[in-house]
Amino acid sequence: MTQIGPNTAYLALNTQSLPERLANVPVLMQQLGDDVQQWDVKEVGDGNLNLVFIVQSPKGSVIVKQALPYVRLVGDSWPLPLYRAFYEYHALTRQAQRDPGSVPEIYYFDEKQALIVMQFLSPHVILRNKLIAGETVAGLGDFCGKHCARVAFRGSELSMKSADKKADVALFAGNVEIPAITEGLVFTDPYFDAEMNNHTPELDPVVARLRANADLKRIVQSMLAKFASNTETMLHGDLHSGSIMSTDTESRVIDPEFAQYGPMGFDIGMLTANYLMAYFSQPAHRGDDLTTYQAWILSVVEKCFAAFQTEFRQLWMTERTGMLYPKALFEDQGQSSESACDAVLANIWLDALRFCGIEMHRRCLSLAHNADFESIENTSIRAPLEARNIEMGLALILNADTLTTPKDLTALAKVFNEKDIL
Amino acid sequence: MTQIGPNTAYLALNTQSLPERLANVPVLMQQLGDDVQQWDVKEVGDGNLNLVFIVQSPKGSVIVKQALPYVRLVGDSWPLPLYRAFYEYHALTRQAQRDPGSVPEIYYFDEKQALIVMQFLSPHVILRNKLIAGETVAGLGDFCGKHCARVAFRGSELSMKSADKKADVALFAGNVEIPAITEGLVFTDPYFDAEMNNHTPELDPVVARLRANADLKRIVQSMLAKFASNTETMLHGDLHSGSIMSTDTESRVIDPEFAQYGPMGFDIGMLTANYLMAYFSQPAHRGDDLTTYQAWILSVVEKCFAAFQTEFRQLWMTERTGMLYPKALFEDQGQSSESACDAVLANIWLDALRFCGIEMHRRCLSLAHNADFESIENTSIRAPLEARNIEMGLALILNADTLTTPKDLTALAKVFNEKDIL
Repeated sequence: MTQIGPNTAYLALNTQSLPERLANVPVLMQQLGDDVQQWDVKEVGDGNLNLVFIVQSPKGSVIVKQALPYVRLVGDSWPLPLYRAFYEYHALTRQAQRDPGSVPEIYYFDEKQALIVMQFLSPHVILRNKLIAGETVAGLGDFCGKHCARVAFRGSELSMKSADKKADVALFAGNVEIPAITEGLVFTDPYFDAEMNNHTPELDPVVARLRANADLKRIVQSMLAKFASNTETMLHGDLHSGSIMSTDTESRVIDPEFAQYGPMGFDIGMLTANYLMAYFSQPAHRGDDLTTYQAWILSVVEKCFAAFQTEFRQLWMTERTGMLYPKALFEDQGQSSESACDAVLANIWLDALRFCGIEMHRRCLSLAHNADFESIENTSIRAPLEARNIEMGLALILNADTLTTPKDLTALAKVFNEKDIL
Repeated sequence: MTQIGPNTAYLALNTQSLPERLANVPVLMQQLGDDVQQWDVKEVGDGNLNLVFIVQSPKGSVIVKQALPYVRLVGDSWPLPLYRAFYEYHALTRQAQRDPGSVPEIYYFDEKQALIVMQFLSPHVILRNKLIAGETVAGLGDFCGKHCARVAFRGSELSMKSADKKADVALFAGNVEIPAITEGLVFTDPYFDAEMNNHTPELDPVVARLRANADLKRIVQSMLAKFASNTETMLHGDLHSGSIMSTDTESRVIDPEFAQYGPMGFDIGMLTANYLMAYFSQPAHRGDDLTTYQAWILSVVEKCFAAFQTEFRQLWMTERTGMLYPKALFEDQGQSSESACDAVLANIWLDALRFCGIEMHRRCLSLAHNADFESIENTSIRAPLEARNIEMGLALILNADTLTTPKDLTALAKVFNEKDIL
């Protein structure tokens, strides 16, 4: 078995080959010690696109993540370029700069092997599993809101030099096939009878109504145009409760391989959708604690947006060093720029609500569903809960401009949570 | 004198050195014949950034355009990268594909010399000069509207494959310093006391009111954010009456060195501003024919937007092959996509009006003024005409959403044309 080196061709790792192939990487020696016999390797990848190994020794532990040249969920009939590891690496380094401590530490990157070695987060687990299990995470909304605001602001021309931002847009424009998954699966497939779609059969009438709504499809396509063309800031691109790892008190964001430059409202909107899906699915997962736990989820949504807005305003006042809304036009002329900041935030909010509604649709109608609903085996229980979620998504897309505050959003969720749609 | 070759370092041409240095370029031999003694060279560059030579021989003629490493208007204190010739070349080839016959034919490109050899348009003259001289151009509005629609549509993901469009966005993202001129001079400098600004002294009170208007500056900055981040299509980037050459019956677009990907409403909005500035300046240039000629200019504006919308709708129905608004969601489900096209056009219209208002401001307040007003030597005549133009620009930026049709726009121009502002 060849060790990994600068001229070694790509070869997928497995639990047997990993220690020998990575034995010559100095940072692994540092983390794990040089006795590879003592390295314990487990494959834990439960996502769709990659191999993920936990490597542990008496001395320490690391995660080894390697991209596969195809979509794991579908198999080698759907090839996918290995270069996504390159974009994940570059996204992680930028996120670490823009929101220190919010992502795992990176130890090593090998472009040819499409391989990243990073910090093993422990005792963190995937947030989605905690949400299904009814566990709370202290400070979750605050963490998510601040993270989204910092990454959005500091990756935009509110903060960056234009030349640096343009160079970064050019770099990430090379990430074609991965964002194309989002373009198709999220924005288009849910709204017609696309080949890879599936949905709970009882939802047929709901789905038919959705696909007959030309206004809905027009607005969703206008959001696709924004997603594809509006390079406001660097996005995570796939921020959901499966891309966050949490303990009971601490959270980190992982897996930014869908990174691209896009609209500031995208990440927080997608994440909100995943909280709302957790919320709507709870009646199938909880007992006596249903009301309390659903209320906690909605408080996370409210705190997330509140923290986003507070942090964004703070950065606006203290780090507005880019070419947009320069102080020369406002503060230096004795004029406040607060209403300009309000207008920018209002646009982010509207975009976020519409992206949120779209994500709520695609996770029930397109290829990649989520465990919040999928783990409900009885479809006669699952379908009515999914229907509430889909109908709220529709309301968000069509009527985003009728909602002003995070409280309006969670109040709407409570209304849909009481509805009998099927 | 070294002939131009693959390893020759950049050296600015002059009328003496040009024949010898270009004698070995085969396409020039074809156009002009191989007897360089018979090549007649004139330097005719009247723009800000480049050397432009007309080279004529008994056999034919060409234009040789060479970028200078600084802004000609300001001198070598403002360096500017030579790579803009590279972007001009790539923009010209794309415009020629997307709207055949709308731009000069390209014969030769030398990246190192920042040099493009192209068709000598004759008897075309710069459109701005015709507008100052009171000359009409048959079919002008139709040509401009169709050109803007074709280039906008065919350079977007309504038409292009996403991978091709992303590669093109990455390519043009390298054009940093040239769009930066627009970012500063157009969107920001007019609204504060920037170093390079100048305006007709009588305008002081008008300018003071403008700079005190925080709402105005907020909206203008939101348009700058769109200009810098919304990569909908490839723009000309500097489309005004000085970038169009016309005979009495035919027009071509030149000089796309400001090319970048940006919002679809930008080019047509900037161009409209230049027609409106020609309109407002006419009282100083015309005699008995004032009313007739002003009416003709407004008819060009109306025809330009009408042709844009008609052509865009036509392309929407016949060439919608990109990922946006796919037929799978509309026509294939027996649903019309006309209202979606209407909504896209309505957005382009709003953006165009706001970009138009901004261009009307910067040409009177920032560095690069235009001859329509500048050639009026008596400032007591010039200033009131500029004031009408500035105030209409303000109305367009603040109240774009109150205008629905091109007739609304030209009616507003007529109102401002009667106002005594100073």
